[in-house]
Amino acid sequence: MATQEKTVENTQLKDIISHAKEYGFIFPSSEIYDGLQAVYDYGQMGVELKNNIKNLWWKCMTQLNQNVVGLDAAIFMHPLVWKASGHVDSFSDPMIDNKDSKKRYRADVLLEEKAAQYENEGDVEKANALLAEMGKLLEAEDLDGVRELIIREGIKCPISGTANWTEVRQFNLMFSTEVGSVADETNTIYLRPETAQGIFVNFLNVQKTGRMKVPFGIAQIGKAFRNEIVARQFIFRMREFEQMEMQFFVRPGTEMEWYNQWKETRKKWHEAIGIPAESLRYHDHEKLAHYANAAVDIEYKFPFGFKEVEGIHSRTDFDLTQHQELSRKKLQYFDNDLNEEGKPYGNYIPYVIETSAGADRLFLMTLCNAYTEEEITEGDNTKSRTFLKLHPSLAPVKAAILPLTKKDGLPEKAEKIFNDLKFDFNMIFEERDSIGKRYTRQDLIGTPFCIAVDHQTLEDDTVTVRDRDSREQVRMPISELKNYIEKAVSFKSIFEKLG
Amino acid sequence: MATQEKTVENTQLKDIISHAKEYGFIFPSSEIYDGLQAVYDYGQMGVELKNNIKNLWWKCMTQLNQNVVGLDAAIFMHPLVWKASGHVDSFSDPMIDNKDSKKRYRADVLLEEKAAQYENEGDVEKANALLAEMGKLLEAEDLDGVRELIIREGIKCPISGTANWTEVRQFNLMFSTEVGSVADETNTIYLRPETAQGIFVNFLNVQKTGRMKVPFGIAQIGKAFRNEIVARQFIFRMREFEQMEMQFFVRPGTEMEWYNQWKETRKKWHEAIGIPAESLRYHDHEKLAHYANAAVDIEYKFPFGFKEVEGIHSRTDFDLTQHQELSRKKLQYFDNDLNEEGKPYGNYIPYVIETSAGADRLFLMTLCNAYTEEEITEGDNTKSRTFLKLHPSLAPVKAAILPLTKKDGLPEKAEKIFNDLKFDFNMIFEERDSIGKRYTRQDLIGTPFCIAVDHQTLEDDTVTVRDRDSREQVRMPISELKNYIEKAVSFKSIFEKLG
Repeated sequence: MATQEKTVENTQLKDIISHAKEYGFIFPSSEIYDGLQAVYDYGQMGVELKNNIKNLWWKCMTQLNQNVVGLDAAIFMHPLVWKASGHVDSFSDPMIDNKDSKKRYRADVLLEEKAAQYENEGDVEKANALLAEMGKLLEAEDLDGVRELIIREGIKCPISGTANWTEVRQFNLMFSTEVGSVADETNTIYLRPETAQGIFVNFLNVQKTGRMKVPFGIAQIGKAFRNEIVARQFIFRMREFEQMEMQFFVRPGTEMEWYNQWKETRKKWHEAIGIPAESLRYHDHEKLAHYANAAVDIEYKFPFGFKEVEGIHSRTDFDLTQHQELSRKKLQYFDNDLNEEGKPYGNYIPYVIETSAGADRLFLMTLCNAYTEEEITEGDNTKSRTFLKLHPSLAPVKAAILPLTKKDGLPEKAEKIFNDLKFDFNMIFEERDSIGKRYTRQDLIGTPFCIAVDHQTLEDDTVTVRDRDSREQVRMPISELKNYIEKAVSFKSIFEKLG
Repeated sequence: MATQEKTVENTQLKDIISHAKEYGFIFPSSEIYDGLQAVYDYGQMGVELKNNIKNLWWKCMTQLNQNVVGLDAAIFMHPLVWKASGHVDSFSDPMIDNKDSKKRYRADVLLEEKAAQYENEGDVEKANALLAEMGKLLEAEDLDGVRELIIREGIKCPISGTANWTEVRQFNLMFSTEVGSVADETNTIYLRPETAQGIFVNFLNVQKTGRMKVPFGIAQIGKAFRNEIVARQFIFRMREFEQMEMQFFVRPGTEMEWYNQWKETRKKWHEAIGIPAESLRYHDHEKLAHYANAAVDIEYKFPFGFKEVEGIHSRTDFDLTQHQELSRKKLQYFDNDLNEEGKPYGNYIPYVIETSAGADRLFLMTLCNAYTEEEITEGDNTKSRTFLKLHPSLAPVKAAILPLTKKDGLPEKAEKIFNDLKFDFNMIFEERDSIGKRYTRQDLIGTPFCIAVDHQTLEDDTVTVRDRDSREQVRMPISELKNYIEKAVSFKSIFEKLG
């Protein structure tokens, strides 16, 4: 039963992947060279959808909140940043190589797959026992024990078919490169594995030059990189990805209050962009990271199951304290209000609540949620239609201007409408193919409105506007188009749900 | 004389760098760890200004032109991309190391500095002769000859003071890193040194899925990386930087026509965002890159002289041909129109016109152009004022809402205005300090409008609006604020100059 469901779900993801490629949303990177594993490019439709998601998040964070400002720190940072954050010493996965095939595997994944096999064979108890034993060994950092377990379970390399395994080693997930101008020294720097640290090291710069008062937040959108060995599920887990992170600095002791508030605010945001409440859920972390005292994921029901799209983490003062120690620069905030209240400690290292969303995951969520197949019955005929039911404010193209025919001056009239509206909206002008085919094409890329210019337009300056979701057409004066579209596609309707 | 001018100019750049740091535009990266050379972070004001520049460019390219669409290719690409483009074999600088100090230098820069020294001493002829000889040697790739020239000129390492030089070697400017899952193989990939190749390898994907007809363009904004040995002039030349590139695909033989058109369009764009015509000039390339048959820079008069902010290049069919050969995938366009015209060659590799702007350079240009010091005489008093005369549509903050005092319900009234307008504009709410100090602060970050809420506001719902540039105040009803600000800060005024 479980297997059958999984197959159905995978088929749906496959449909979405094909659709994304066929209509210019996502292409495999360097495809003409047979691609680069776990790296993807956003096509002409994809980049607009992604930019809309990023812009909306940015404006919701910085523009609607008096006390949140933005930042754009570089990908390159001083190597000591990653020493302080703990990434140099412990941002790693346990890896094992097969000596015959030379292939490398994640040791924990090999064991997890073995456990899944037991479960498929009906032996749930054996599966759970294996996972529990592996958990204990990893927690104790007993890598020899992990290797012995792999051998004892008879796990073989699927390429060579042998159990000729190397020892298990920790493999750091950061990409490194060499920089600089000195001949003999190796000057290793890392591609940031998270954007958050760019905010932490700039904490006082922003606070002082922006005269920010705690509580306040710093929001950032940017690329991060992780050398994932097992990258999979399309753009869900990539080696190069984009984060949208906000670090919110609060008085120590008030962090749980803010944690709960941001947890709620962020879930509301996902609902505001059109994700049904039943497709979202919270998942509390049982085992907390070393820097956190509370953490929750917001999960979306992807075709491959409920998975994280955003995390809300109470990071305590861990990062700022680490940076203060290693850099020997004071990273403290002087809280004048606290001082005026007569409290003894005006100076402190703030506690931090983080909201960390994956832009690519939000993109995939939006796409999966929008991908709709429906049966349409017209008289005796039933046909099926596929369309992207994107929130109009996120749709890549807001309107298509379509002259009914290529003659009688219709294209010229349509072009005039296009030119009058192009300052306000991203639009497409298309005169090729039948009007029905053109509607279908716009459905497939999620354009909310199709504006048809016909012979009546020449007489009375009216056009028909077709709605993507209802397929209904209304006739309206050209002069009303701008307001009609604006009302539907503006971020305002989303802002108002949140502001 | 030349020296004196240079000093004045450098002082002005220094002022701009300090200003950029003090008011949250640009911070040195990882500053608490004493920075990372030639890498900078954009602060809370800088990120807004940069985003506005990027958004404006994007909309001008993709939204105003029916036949230009966007793309967002990954930074990571297949290594063969850089083999085909020529970057693996020839994207390098000639470097020389001093054996005593272990310091590495660009050989050509050492010689250029020597020539500059001759020139400063009044011997222009000797300077020119040296530069000419160096040019010949580099063109002939005679690196031994370059080394001999350095020794003959008696050039010494400024650190060790010796002329104990290694041989001259070509040093590739691409950053590399190791990726992947195979133990024994080194799987080297590069951080892209330009965004253009992401467009070339996706050329057919975009053309087919977007049904684009030649001539058409693909626009992209993204990070690129170059391991510059001599990185300098603040954010003008950085190791990590952001490009805004558009590749325009045309019929072979029509490229000069399009080259000239884009050359004009792009200069007009710089003028439309407020750069005076006299601060801009064209600089034709005398020596063309191997892939180009025409190239021009648009230069801006920085405090350190006229320097490139954007290049327009006629790249011929070089890149697409290279990729077609190496990938063995046809990268040809079938030109149905040409076919219908009865011309024999419906299939061809398009020629390419590139417009390539540096987002960071445009940022620096905008900042330098906006930085204004003026003397204000009021009665017998003369005082000076510094402010950023940014185009209102690029200003980070559009309006500041300022209650005159902290009491009498003024903050509450001001907050209501803020909340009503926050859906439309990025704003600041500020109640600290005297109103004069608050005006000054907004001038320094370039906010076009300061809205003061005073006791009269409580009576008749009017506010004063202070103009940043004229310092004049007008009183207007709160209900008119939105339109008043919108008209000034919308991209529309810029679009209309270009559309």
